Amino acid sequence: MTTVLIKGLGLIGSSIARAIRKEYPTVKIIAEDKNQDSLNFALRNHIIDQAGHNWSTVGRADFIILASPVSQIIADLHALSQLKLKAGVVVTDVGSTKQAVMNASQELQVKGVTFIGGHPMAGSHLTGARAGRSDLFSGAYYFLVGDSQSEAVSHLEHLLAGLHVKWLSLTAEEHDLIVAQISHVPHVIAAALVNQTQAALTGLPGGMDLAAGGFKSVTRIAASDPTMWQAIMLSNQENISQQLGDYIDHLTRVKKDIDDGDGQALLKFFSSAQAARQSLNRRDRHEVNSHRIHG
Amino acid sequence: MTTVLIKGLGLIGSSIARAIRKEYPTVKIIAEDKNQDSLNFALRNHIIDQAGHNWSTVGRADFIILASPVSQIIADLHALSQLKLKAGVVVTDVGSTKQAVMNASQELQVKGVTFIGGHPMAGSHLTGARAGRSDLFSGAYYFLVGDSQSEAVSHLEHLLAGLHVKWLSLTAEEHDLIVAQISHVPHVIAAALVNQTQAALTGLPGGMDLAAGGFKSVTRIAASDPTMWQAIMLSNQENISQQLGDYIDHLTRVKKDIDDGDGQALLKFFSSAQAARQSLNRRDRHEVNSHRIHG
Repeated sequence: MTTVLIKGLGLIGSSIARAIRKEYPTVKIIAEDKNQDSLNFALRNHIIDQAGHNWSTVGRADFIILASPVSQIIADLHALSQLKLKAGVVVTDVGSTKQAVMNASQELQVKGVTFIGGHPMAGSHLTGARAGRSDLFSGAYYFLVGDSQSEAVSHLEHLLAGLHVKWLSLTAEEHDLIVAQISHVPHVIAAALVNQTQAALTGLPGGMDLAAGGFKSVTRIAASDPTMWQAIMLSNQENISQQLGDYIDHLTRVKKDIDDGDGQALLKFFSSAQAARQSLNRRDRHEVNSHRIHG
Repeated sequence: MTTVLIKGLGLIGSSIARAIRKEYPTVKIIAEDKNQDSLNFALRNHIIDQAGHNWSTVGRADFIILASPVSQIIADLHALSQLKLKAGVVVTDVGSTKQAVMNASQELQVKGVTFIGGHPMAGSHLTGARAGRSDLFSGAYYFLVGDSQSEAVSHLEHLLAGLHVKWLSLTAEEHDLIVAQISHVPHVIAAALVNQTQAALTGLPGGMDLAAGGFKSVTRIAASDPTMWQAIMLSNQENISQQLGDYIDHLTRVKKDIDDGDGQALLKFFSSAQAARQSLNRRDRHEVNSHRIHG
């Protein structure tokens, strides 16, 4: 019987537990979480079979899934390197940046333990075990960092088949650049627009109440957890700064086109954005629920 | 019997026609549009009662609603100033910028004709008469520029009661600054992120296919009509440039906080954005469908 230990039973950890349970009802799922309420909820709802504490069950695990924020994952990797693990165990994580995690996993890997970095690319503004759903990541990318040809990767993908994700193998460097661009910078952009708009509309009739349509759409993700986003900024500092700087350059060029009244340049700007954004929608409609791309 | 002439039977014009029809089945609605297919569609579906051509019916109209893009509205205002209109007629428009329109309306106003600038603040990526809906603007702001105490404003609000909008009176200057901030700049931000991301992901495994979650949410509106947005940029150039410059300054300051690893500043940045964005959602839930704010 396969045993899975999930450390951190929040939105992501509990969604993974649900998906494993749904796909493989007989897999034994043990979870650890500092929040006893989450563990009780998951036990009561048969999302997990057992609650563990302080790695008490770690020696029985065939898979160990570290599903806490990056700083905790790094601490967990250190703790695991001091413990006796089952032969052949596959350790993975779900952290949102990968270079720091892969570095921290060295201590474990030099002892011969297999570690595969992981990052499922979907989310929700909700948090906690109660908000988890087995289909939270359905159709989304799940990035893997590590030797994509290894057996351990196949085993992990097999275990998580119930997530119905698109697997993509990347280097840690590629991963951190990509998430800076498609996730971290967009969050900065949205939050900055909220703050700047609030300042700009102060004193005008209606104030922030007027903010509608375009504004609401662009800024929806600015309602996310500030502590998490602060931590992400600090954990992927260089990539975010670089891509944000590049974005500021783009905006500055458009501002010049507006100042110059350069209709041709503006039409090109909006046309190329429209084409790229529409093709994204088209790809969504045609996408297969689960396939694999090797980077 | 009240007669309404709508010039331009696209998404907005046809939605207004539908809302008037629904609220006041006996009001006579005449429409002009260069697209004969739109007129036929609207006649067939009893959205309008009659198709007009070259202002042939203009002398019978109690209300004239100019529902074309701003450049056409300006031409229409000039044309109307040369024609014999019914005594007491109220002329209005739905153009997305107001200073240029209010200036163009002077020619008409000096002849004693009442003009009220208007701008309903909602939209859709769809276009054309077929896509119109009587509830397209339901719950949204409808900005009015002109003397908010005048009888004509009451008459217009009464005629358009079926839109179920929130009326807000503004000066043309306030209007153009507000829409630059809540609509025009967000469109630039979204389009720039699409273009910059496409360039940044070129050559990486997955490329633009990876763009998910945060990116999709922020850039949804970048799929809008490029010609319309080019025209808007040129018609509200100064305000957009100023607010975009202010936004670039905000981004530049956040970039510095990221570079400095200033966790406190970053937490404050994301916290204030979260609070403002969440309060917007709360206001939405509590909002009354139709009320009036005088600026």
